[in-house]
Amino acid sequence: MIYADNAATTKMSETAIRTMTELMQTGWGNASSLYSTGQKAKEYLEKAREEIAAVIGASPREIIFTSGGSEADNQAILSAAALGRRKGKMHIISSAFEHHAVLHTLDKLQKEGFAVTLLDVHEDGLVRPEELEAAIREDTCLVTIMAANNEIGTIQDIRRIGAVCREKGVLFHTDAVQAVGHIPLNVEEDHIDMLSASAHKFHGPKGVGFLYAKRGIWLTNLIEGGAQERGKRAGTENVPAIAAMAAALKEVSSRREENTAHLEVMRDRLIEGLSRIPHAALNGDPKKRLPGNVNFCFEGIEGESLLLLLDDRGIQASSGSACTSGSLDPSHVLLAIGRVHDVAHGSLRLSLGEDITAEEVDEIIGAVTEVVAYLRSFSPIWRDLMSGKREFIL
Amino acid sequence: MIYADNAATTKMSETAIRTMTELMQTGWGNASSLYSTGQKAKEYLEKAREEIAAVIGASPREIIFTSGGSEADNQAILSAAALGRRKGKMHIISSAFEHHAVLHTLDKLQKEGFAVTLLDVHEDGLVRPEELEAAIREDTCLVTIMAANNEIGTIQDIRRIGAVCREKGVLFHTDAVQAVGHIPLNVEEDHIDMLSASAHKFHGPKGVGFLYAKRGIWLTNLIEGGAQERGKRAGTENVPAIAAMAAALKEVSSRREENTAHLEVMRDRLIEGLSRIPHAALNGDPKKRLPGNVNFCFEGIEGESLLLLLDDRGIQASSGSACTSGSLDPSHVLLAIGRVHDVAHGSLRLSLGEDITAEEVDEIIGAVTEVVAYLRSFSPIWRDLMSGKREFIL
Repeated sequence: MIYADNAATTKMSETAIRTMTELMQTGWGNASSLYSTGQKAKEYLEKAREEIAAVIGASPREIIFTSGGSEADNQAILSAAALGRRKGKMHIISSAFEHHAVLHTLDKLQKEGFAVTLLDVHEDGLVRPEELEAAIREDTCLVTIMAANNEIGTIQDIRRIGAVCREKGVLFHTDAVQAVGHIPLNVEEDHIDMLSASAHKFHGPKGVGFLYAKRGIWLTNLIEGGAQERGKRAGTENVPAIAAMAAALKEVSSRREENTAHLEVMRDRLIEGLSRIPHAALNGDPKKRLPGNVNFCFEGIEGESLLLLLDDRGIQASSGSACTSGSLDPSHVLLAIGRVHDVAHGSLRLSLGEDITAEEVDEIIGAVTEVVAYLRSFSPIWRDLMSGKREFIL
Repeated sequence: MIYADNAATTKMSETAIRTMTELMQTGWGNASSLYSTGQKAKEYLEKAREEIAAVIGASPREIIFTSGGSEADNQAILSAAALGRRKGKMHIISSAFEHHAVLHTLDKLQKEGFAVTLLDVHEDGLVRPEELEAAIREDTCLVTIMAANNEIGTIQDIRRIGAVCREKGVLFHTDAVQAVGHIPLNVEEDHIDMLSASAHKFHGPKGVGFLYAKRGIWLTNLIEGGAQERGKRAGTENVPAIAAMAAALKEVSSRREENTAHLEVMRDRLIEGLSRIPHAALNGDPKKRLPGNVNFCFEGIEGESLLLLLDDRGIQASSGSACTSGSLDPSHVLLAIGRVHDVAHGSLRLSLGEDITAEEVDEIIGAVTEVVAYLRSFSPIWRDLMSGKREFIL
């Protein structure tokens, strides 16, 4: 079995599993309790906060633990909106291919009177910092741009985007769910005011993530209740999962350079192999993308059939985001980079894990090549394309 | 070590730990993914949903998984408020001693124009259904009353409260975080429209809970994003924790009657023993309370010192809710049942676990008796009380 859907979720690392297993036994106290079992849990909690803060160049006080990336995205954006509203600044800038945790939160804010500008991400899946600069208005309270896209893996120039925002005095949030642990990020050097992350994207457990918010930014509570997380996020602290998240993040971060070097070779080998399939096209910039991300469109086929046949051959991949699976709409990400509906339907995302081998990459290339040819052999669209009744797009 | 703070959190059961450990290895797929690893996770998820639904008499479709009880409380109340607002019904009834996850959400709604009536919980810590009935207005959109109180453990007559609400056509939500797994609850028979629960209160993992919402109730999203949980709760499904929650709940539920019988004997023994301490009083009704809950006020001492000295003797307890520890304010629960500030400060909550023995109960009685006497021996308030400068309240 080749698991090539690490953008959807990753398998927990042995380190993370070990930490979780250990802390379910020894770190189960309520971290807000005064007695020893509680204080021990509290120590694990604060150690995790320090370790996580260190990885992204933040101070521990700037880290709030959440139930995952979606919650962090929601809280960051709603917080910036609340701050903006108070100053009469009700304009937000984002991009057309953000995760739905961002886009749907922006939809909600639009209903409350906020104006939203979605920047074009162009064919290469990249925002242009100069277009961002031009879009910033007097009443802009927030820029929220994802660090790396979850479908096509393109990596934005976060540092330049952050610099533009800092210069203009606008808060900058980045959904870094796909980025943390996989590409270098430093909130100080990158001028990031808020950042969202999710543990299960870097071999940590599910159900836990964090929000970085620069000191001085007043967060709005998404979940009201107890005084945990300095009163900013209610709910008994999920210490075993938080500690496992920290352990996973430390591990992937310490290996990031070698992982990246290996994955980029594997990714480029995969891109090269799949490019040999006729009427196929890579989605997003070939180099400014996550080290393990490959995303292709194949003309004349349905992505879902492709996935099921690949699964039969032991290759697990996706057509796009798992969060929207079951939806018949084509990916909003692919539409945002200019793919037309027909082509966007035939998409395949392969997100490689750090332990992928060249043999496995070749196996994927072989399987995808065969399955695409097989599906085309009885596709009416493909027949029309071949007979000239319909024009090729790719 | 005697852990007597099970209301703050419980140690995970071996069954729950085993399920979690196993599923971190085998159930880590993204439950929204189409391939086999994802579908396997999906199976675990739906099995857990069925098991949990069965315990409370709901149908699986009526269960939404959340990150815990606070999130479920927030979502339930905000959903009812959104439905009420649409009909011009902006009045909510609750009680004065709800958990802060409820009270703070109601504060937020009051700022948005909702009117809130907090019912008196009287000296015994019990809402009067007839007072509830009288408080319901034409514009009441929600009644939210906790099934069992987290500090003093009093159990409301949920079935009568539910019947009043049903008859008046008002939505009824119950924060059942302390109740689920510990007392019988059936959403159908108890006329409950929405119910919140948290796994770590019944020997499941932290960071996971559920919201029951009766079919037909349109939920408002608290966390926007992907289409998970029928579009009502975004975020990758935390399958290992959800399955462990189901395993824990099944187990405690199957043993509930014997646990209750044992705990009630232990509780009553503890109450009897602590009642022998002079100028001490049990908080809340002596019988209509959780089988393991004991909560006392001792005049002339500070609860915090009591806790620390008990911890030194290997007994872990709390003065009230862990969620508000660090706060210098006396418990809002104790104030709500009419305890004055001075007395409320000297509170002790002992919430027993199912494996507590009579010897341990006697050890607690001995330790508390000695520590209370010791603290009083150098308490200026106690000196004033004894010299008649100050009058005893208890």
